Amino acid sequence: MNVGIVGLGLIGGSMAKSVKTRTLHTVWGADIDRETMTLARLCGAIDGPLTDENLADCDLLLLALAPRSVVGWVQEHAKGISRKTVVIDLCGIKRAVCRELAPLARQHGFTYVGGHPMAGLERSGFVNAQPDLFAGSSMILMRGPDTDIQLLDRLKAFFTDVGFASLTFTTPEEHDRIIAYTSQLAHVVSSAYVRSPEALERRGFSAGSFRDMTRVARLDEILWTELLMDNRDFLVGQIETLIDNLNGYLDALKSDDAARLRALLKEGREKKAQAGGN
Amino acid sequence: MNVGIVGLGLIGGSMAKSVKTRTLHTVWGADIDRETMTLARLCGAIDGPLTDENLADCDLLLLALAPRSVVGWVQEHAKGISRKTVVIDLCGIKRAVCRELAPLARQHGFTYVGGHPMAGLERSGFVNAQPDLFAGSSMILMRGPDTDIQLLDRLKAFFTDVGFASLTFTTPEEHDRIIAYTSQLAHVVSSAYVRSPEALERRGFSAGSFRDMTRVARLDEILWTELLMDNRDFLVGQIETLIDNLNGYLDALKSDDAARLRALLKEGREKKAQAGGN
Repeated sequence: MNVGIVGLGLIGGSMAKSVKTRTLHTVWGADIDRETMTLARLCGAIDGPLTDENLADCDLLLLALAPRSVVGWVQEHAKGISRKTVVIDLCGIKRAVCRELAPLARQHGFTYVGGHPMAGLERSGFVNAQPDLFAGSSMILMRGPDTDIQLLDRLKAFFTDVGFASLTFTTPEEHDRIIAYTSQLAHVVSSAYVRSPEALERRGFSAGSFRDMTRVARLDEILWTELLMDNRDFLVGQIETLIDNLNGYLDALKSDDAARLRALLKEGREKKAQAGGN
Repeated sequence: MNVGIVGLGLIGGSMAKSVKTRTLHTVWGADIDRETMTLARLCGAIDGPLTDENLADCDLLLLALAPRSVVGWVQEHAKGISRKTVVIDLCGIKRAVCRELAPLARQHGFTYVGGHPMAGLERSGFVNAQPDLFAGSSMILMRGPDTDIQLLDRLKAFFTDVGFASLTFTTPEEHDRIIAYTSQLAHVVSSAYVRSPEALERRGFSAGSFRDMTRVARLDEILWTELLMDNRDFLVGQIETLIDNLNGYLDALKSDDAARLRALLKEGREKKAQAGGN
């Protein structure tokens, strides 16, 4: 199979390395950065560049750019994409991307599926791309009433081969609602947390909880501003819920109500046990 | 050297295992749970029980109980502690403990130093105790104007032998102020975060950021209620600062102000780079 990958940053680069490490597929890559292209070729992450000439020979086209850039890239290249090609974007938000790409796919006759690999790192760029980034993770794919089941089976085989542990099928709406909580809110909290003055006094006074709480504050603010802004309806609700929750602990502390504080902490422990995820 | 350890939970049990694994010291342990005592003896974490008979032979006495229990234990056993013994409590808050133990030490003639090993786990109890829990961590010790420098040198040798990477000297006041931010606030946020309704929908939709954000929600609510309540003056301020910070992101999102959101995220990234800790 010929796999085209557009954007060789953390996600696209890791996808290229995962495919080359774990399958026999051919990978053609594209990135606006020349050094990245050279490095990707030299380390074997791609077999060669994705060009206007070989674009039509792609069986699978993975788009690993920021949302607006993905839409721009497809608008520009739609005419060169074959009807046999399956196009999957890997953006972290889905409503804003799917509503642009689905009509383009219908218009030009290729197949489009929205996707979101549930793995990442606080460090970006091809230099941080890893062949095991997706190992054990969930690959989320959008499924509508008219989605071809055989296609989903083929995609399941591909993503499993590449290292994902499971596939999760959903709609853009449900994806964006849950992601606002599981990922976007975590990035906002991490960023807000580390902006307290005491952060600069933490050396010698911190351990795992500070480390984990602030890890993803090291984010790419240009990419994340786009992701958060495009999902701000859901994200606003999540931040408000968290502030409400925090006010519960605050009130218990202010009123010296140990029983109330203990009940909140107990509820948190029980919720964590139900939710899992460690 | 004879080391007595009171309380063989996560911290005391890990201390026992660290001492036995890394030094030739004798360890006598005490725990109210009989099974823990048996297990600690069978796995070699202690050489035998700490008793009223051998208490006076301890060169070092490490107290790994919750704050109130530590104070109660010392009140009960102060008469049996030798003047040559150095007593160190390992509680996560220092003002509430030091103000009780320092007078008892003066009264009975033994040496007392407040301590806090900056390592932990979201799982408690001896079954989770590990000989490497403190490896690479900071051991915090209280130092006043009249603290014996030679004693601190001896303690530095001991804690370094046991695996700590560094010692941090501070006062109870400074400790409690910074810990309210680096550790206590993280536990409150983690607990508050996981209490959102979407937590139960996260399977297939989450990765590292959710995992890290909610890890310590699995806390012992009885111990943590005591720790948080005893430090509530500082903790209230920290929760309020975080809510203020979160409101900044919330306002930027609500007013569709991408430039403002990007500036906040950039500031968080820069603050994280300054603060380090990953």
